[in-house]
Amino acid sequence: MNKARIRMGMIGGAEGAFIGAVHRIAARLDGLIDLVAGSFSSDPARSQSTATMLGIDPARCYDTYQDMFQEEAKLADNQRIDFVVIVTPNHLHFPIAKLAIESGFHVLSDKPATLNLQEARALQTLINSSDCLYGLTHTYTGYPMVKEARYRIAQGQLGAIRKVVVEYSQGWLATQEDEAGKQAQWRLDATKAGISCCIADIGVHAANLVEYVSGLAIEALCADLNHVVPGRTLDDDGTVLLRFDNGCKGVLLASQIALGEENNLNLRIYGDKGSLEWSQMEPNSLWLKSHNAPTTLLRAGVALQSEAARNALRTPAGHPEGYLEAFANIYVNFTKLIEAKKAGRAVNNHQFDVPGIEDAIRGMAFIENAVEASSKNTKWHTFKLDER
Amino acid sequence: MNKARIRMGMIGGAEGAFIGAVHRIAARLDGLIDLVAGSFSSDPARSQSTATMLGIDPARCYDTYQDMFQEEAKLADNQRIDFVVIVTPNHLHFPIAKLAIESGFHVLSDKPATLNLQEARALQTLINSSDCLYGLTHTYTGYPMVKEARYRIAQGQLGAIRKVVVEYSQGWLATQEDEAGKQAQWRLDATKAGISCCIADIGVHAANLVEYVSGLAIEALCADLNHVVPGRTLDDDGTVLLRFDNGCKGVLLASQIALGEENNLNLRIYGDKGSLEWSQMEPNSLWLKSHNAPTTLLRAGVALQSEAARNALRTPAGHPEGYLEAFANIYVNFTKLIEAKKAGRAVNNHQFDVPGIEDAIRGMAFIENAVEASSKNTKWHTFKLDER
Amino acid sequence: MNKARIRMGMIGGAEGAFIGAVHRIAARLDGLIDLVAGSFSSDPARSQSTATMLGIDPARCYDTYQDMFQEEAKLADNQRIDFVVIVTPNHLHFPIAKLAIESGFHVLSDKPATLNLQEARALQTLINSSDCLYGLTHTYTGYPMVKEARYRIAQGQLGAIRKVVVEYSQGWLATQEDEAGKQAQWRLDATKAGISCCIADIGVHAANLVEYVSGLAIEALCADLNHVVPGRTLDDDGTVLLRFDNGCKGVLLASQIALGEENNLNLRIYGDKGSLEWSQMEPNSLWLKSHNAPTTLLRAGVALQSEAARNALRTPAGHPEGYLEAFANIYVNFTKLIEAKKAGRAVNNHQFDVPGIEDAIRGMAFIENAVEASSKNTKWHTFKLDER
Amino acid sequence: MNKARIRMGMIGGAEGAFIGAVHRIAARLDGLIDLVAGSFSSDPARSQSTATMLGIDPARCYDTYQDMFQEEAKLADNQRIDFVVIVTPNHLHFPIAKLAIESGFHVLSDKPATLNLQEARALQTLINSSDCLYGLTHTYTGYPMVKEARYRIAQGQLGAIRKVVVEYSQGWLATQEDEAGKQAQWRLDATKAGISCCIADIGVHAANLVEYVSGLAIEALCADLNHVVPGRTLDDDGTVLLRFDNGCKGVLLASQIALGEENNLNLRIYGDKGSLEWSQMEPNSLWLKSHNAPTTLLRAGVALQSEAARNALRTPAGHPEGYLEAFANIYVNFTKLIEAKKAGRAVNNHQFDVPGIEDAIRGMAFIENAVEASSKNTKWHTFKLDER
Repeated sequence: MNKARIRMGMIGGAEGAFIGAVHRIAARLDGLIDLVAGSFSSDPARSQSTATMLGIDPARCYDTYQDMFQEEAKLADNQRIDFVVIVTPNHLHFPIAKLAIESGFHVLSDKPATLNLQEARALQTLINSSDCLYGLTHTYTGYPMVKEARYRIAQGQLGAIRKVVVEYSQGWLATQEDEAGKQAQWRLDATKAGISCCIADIGVHAANLVEYVSGLAIEALCADLNHVVPGRTLDDDGTVLLRFDNGCKGVLLASQIALGEENNLNLRIYGDKGSLEWSQMEPNSLWLKSHNAPTTLLRAGVALQSEAARNALRTPAGHPEGYLEAFANIYVNFTKLIEAKKAGRAVNNHQFDVPGIEDAIRGMAFIENAVEASSKNTKWHTFKLDER
Repeated sequence: MNKARIRMGMIGGAEGAFIGAVHRIAARLDGLIDLVAGSFSSDPARSQSTATMLGIDPARCYDTYQDMFQEEAKLADNQRIDFVVIVTPNHLHFPIAKLAIESGFHVLSDKPATLNLQEARALQTLINSSDCLYGLTHTYTGYPMVKEARYRIAQGQLGAIRKVVVEYSQGWLATQEDEAGKQAQWRLDATKAGISCCIADIGVHAANLVEYVSGLAIEALCADLNHVVPGRTLDDDGTVLLRFDNGCKGVLLASQIALGEENNLNLRIYGDKGSLEWSQMEPNSLWLKSHNAPTTLLRAGVALQSEAARNALRTPAGHPEGYLEAFANIYVNFTKLIEAKKAGRAVNNHQFDVPGIEDAIRGMAFIENAVEASSKNTKWHTFKLDER
Repeated sequence: MNKARIRMGMIGGAEGAFIGAVHRIAARLDGLIDLVAGSFSSDPARSQSTATMLGIDPARCYDTYQDMFQEEAKLADNQRIDFVVIVTPNHLHFPIAKLAIESGFHVLSDKPATLNLQEARALQTLINSSDCLYGLTHTYTGYPMVKEARYRIAQGQLGAIRKVVVEYSQGWLATQEDEAGKQAQWRLDATKAGISCCIADIGVHAANLVEYVSGLAIEALCADLNHVVPGRTLDDDGTVLLRFDNGCKGVLLASQIALGEENNLNLRIYGDKGSLEWSQMEPNSLWLKSHNAPTTLLRAGVALQSEAARNALRTPAGHPEGYLEAFANIYVNFTKLIEAKKAGRAVNNHQFDVPGIEDAIRGMAFIENAVEASSKNTKWHTFKLDER
Repeated sequence: MNKARIRMGMIGGAEGAFIGAVHRIAARLDGLIDLVAGSFSSDPARSQSTATMLGIDPARCYDTYQDMFQEEAKLADNQRIDFVVIVTPNHLHFPIAKLAIESGFHVLSDKPATLNLQEARALQTLINSSDCLYGLTHTYTGYPMVKEARYRIAQGQLGAIRKVVVEYSQGWLATQEDEAGKQAQWRLDATKAGISCCIADIGVHAANLVEYVSGLAIEALCADLNHVVPGRTLDDDGTVLLRFDNGCKGVLLASQIALGEENNLNLRIYGDKGSLEWSQMEPNSLWLKSHNAPTTLLRAGVALQSEAARNALRTPAGHPEGYLEAFANIYVNFTKLIEAKKAGRAVNNHQFDVPGIEDAIRGMAFIENAVEASSKNTKWHTFKLDER
């Protein structure tokens, strides 16, 4: 059978888990990665049945992630996994990533990186003192038109950025009945999800997206997080006013109780020369606006200026690519990063457009800053990157 | 020639003034009103040339509004104007309205009603002690689908309202060059526009729309108003977090520096049973969303439930009506209000769906509350309806 | 009261008639025309009650159109009507227009101009030998973005035109139950509507629009008209393949049984340098497409190149204008045509962008050619402008 | 490494070929198929470099497809390929498919199945007398919302179908310069593409889609194919009027010179109870229209009624899936068909929703009927399924 160049092990993602299956598709899509080992569930039988379903050698399906790292480390260079992907609930991200790196494996982690900023800082220290690579799947940065937007702003086509509006609205947690689902349960449980539900789950994607595209960094915020559905201890909705390092203002809206919304992540950035607009649910369109001039509809595959965007596409214009391809783009770039590392080059995430531990730190800080700011009746709070 | 049932006089709106021309079209559209008198400009010659252009009897074109009220009052019942419409810059709204009412004329005023809340309170006292009617052209409440949205919420079709997002974004003041225009000049001049530009000009429309449709009243707010273009003394952008009297939260975004935006007023209301979405730039569509069910696109002229919406339409489905027709709907309803009054019935604005002095008070209060709240570093402020 | 510069009489359009009310709004909207006389119904009582509703002098409400022309002709120059608008069912268009012209009145006619091509030819002869003006309300040519499209093609911005797709789909006659309505009854009755329902009522608008915008003339066609709902003797659906005088091909789709469609008139024109797309239900947008380049969204009020388009707008960008304003634009231009005539200038419809008798001839010929071509099993038929 | 359940060999699809890469992604996406053998190019060196790129065992990269079938047939049951996918230019589809079946391998073929109807009939005979499965990648039937549309029509939700409009417009061959590309060259060469370019390449997809969704069969047609760009011997544009076996009419538009269009395949079906609309470029939306009732927007992942549609989705609502996933759905279903066959069950394509040789026959017949009908000046032609 055919062999991909990179071997992956997976922690979490047993049959029925949404995000594990998505990661597997993303890893497979471009034929660069083989999933060859895993510890898919804390229940060994369930883990084995997942391995069987996936055609993985039973000997490389492990009861625990500790076993996996220990045994894989013993294998020959051309056999053992190159990296591990972590797709468990949030509270396990840190201990698994930590042990993986201590065992010498590169890590690709679902977001958020850790349960809190303290863990993220500890993980950063560990990564920086190791020879291991670390990537974080901020999926939405994988979309070609997001990359095109980033490129055009970096090229100055919008001029100075003056206002940002980013929104991530969902309705899937709109009712108490919705809490029964497995995806809902752990996200609403502070022991597994951390101090926030909505901001930690989706608000952080919005914050990451806005910084990625605009090239700006949040430097202060005013937060109003809400617990809309009775009985919830974590936020299920929130608005965060932002101030960026260039002085411009932004608004971030996030909600899981916006009944009827699917996965409505959208971004608008207004500059003094031009503006742009992008929406995840129609990801192949990027709107460019001008002052007193017609609007331009830039479409995936047509006259893109950014090499990163062009490389992120697999099909000609008019053949819609979507979420899974955006996700796969993160995998492609992470694979290139590993290969460059294998080739002995000095590498960093930024070169290969892979979200890394710095993004993780900013994301965890965003969650903690927003939750703290929301609890106070002072309006503006300096965005702090240190643990509190 | 044909005689409409109601006679109107106009203050302001000389040739070249945008909003005066709009009011005249709106007044004409349904053939209910004749414009028979006016004082169109502080420059008598310019006023006369406007009168000539409009085919108005030169004898009823007055040098000043004071003259107009004095002379018109002397005319016979079946000759003199029934009401006066005020379309001057903001700072003249109050003195004109005051004198009109003191002279016994009904008043329809462009918004904002006055320059500040104090004047609005004084005007309210005057109106309440008079026999005159007062209407305020909050145009966007004139759209049929806005009325349908309001009806459906009032009927409980969305359940309890839990989140509101309303936005009014424009780009026409995005640059310093844009300040040369006549429309821009007075809006950016505190002596003519009052304490705010963006919130007073458009934010107040958004606040009015959200209260009109939702049936909720703002009870607290957190405001962040910005002066984006260098050299401006009044806000040209802002975000206001809202809390309503049922405890639900809202976000109001307003901007005049959102480069590339035309007149992007849009509204989303999320309930615990359903949600809705409306946008002024595609005004004949109303989106109704449900939980785990398909979305409904309700279109002007198709299966509307609200009599108010049906009455506000002139053409069958698929024949787009727009801004001028929405504006005309305010005139139609104000005309009906006057006729009911003439017929000796006890009337109030609410019965005829005409925005009135209470809306004016709330609007002026919104402006003052937002400006004050923005100046403080306390997050939440109680919405006060009294002068400060 | 104010006097408009032009006086209009109306034939047809009693209370409750759809198109009569639309014409009145269109005539009123810009304050250029006074409706001062009428014969609104073949039932004199109904005609008088309409006159009363409209505030028209009872003495100028006539029992018959013959009376109206006779009596109005006796009035002084500055009293009598300048033109007559005809808004009756189709079969009366010709006799009324004929008598009006013979009586010396300009005519503005709802379309189709006559019941058949023979009548249209007779009318043309009459007009050409008279001093009267004749206009036809092909409403959709009144939209600003339609004028902009026409201008850009005339300027060569699309290069050589190579393909055209025009569609006019409605669903209002989709069922037998729909035949009960007054609008439906006469349109499905050959004695009142002529030899066609769908093509005569809406197909002809599509044909007119495509010739108006493209500047091309239909020179051959292949038609397939259908009688979809059982029991109908006239077509309620049809497709017509077109060949234009430059050799390019087109497709015209028309339907009244396209269940769920409102008033879906849309047009696409493909050239060898660029393409464009316009849809009546979002009339303020015009899409311009290029080869291997981004698409441009041109919006009403933003950077329009055509003076005709700019003049056809009343409000700034983002304030949607619609069907009634497009209709009013025909009236505005017809008014200018009359005034130029009054001023003693040699004028023709084309100068003032008013559809005239030549358009009427082409429209009637389109209906007759399409019906005849549909009855044959030969594919292509030369488009004949002569009576058969 | 992990082993998928089904082994695939590929003919054609060397590096740089568009459709070969798409097939590989589609085959990989769900982890059910391993690509283990291939003959990727008529140039053995190019074939080997493709094999190396793909991680395929060099011993199983064959110089010719004849070699491949001969050698693979010698391998053990659990080693040799289960099926072959054919992604060469059109003229090789038939000889390869023939030899594959004669060698005992199941075949999945890119469309069109063969160069002409005669070959397709020969292939049908061969398949029917063999034990081999045959699938044809009519990609667009793989979209979830297409399956939902089909289901709802089959359930009678639209009532009797009365009109169909299907369009497939592209602009990529709009100019002579566009003919230089490799994709263009063979499509415009009758020796490789057959008797048609536009109809054979994309018109046939449209015809297949409309029959798949509506459940109707074309029984007569009127065709007008065009050679728009000078110098072309094959059609690059065309319109085909359709009559279906229930008597209803349809219009099929196809173009490769519709400058500015990307891959605009869209479908509307009008019934006497309801209508629907779908567009490939926004594939996750299906519009359902009703008579005098609001329109429904059905979205992928929300309240789908069809099991086939639900099974064709991998992610929750709001996570857009696209062209590659639709393609992969054909592979998934073909895999299930093979597995059922392996399990000894009597199977046919229809059970597993895999386009098969009957669809291939209808497709080839569509091309030949359209080309012949276009050459005649008789309007309607009976749709013939036999070779001429």
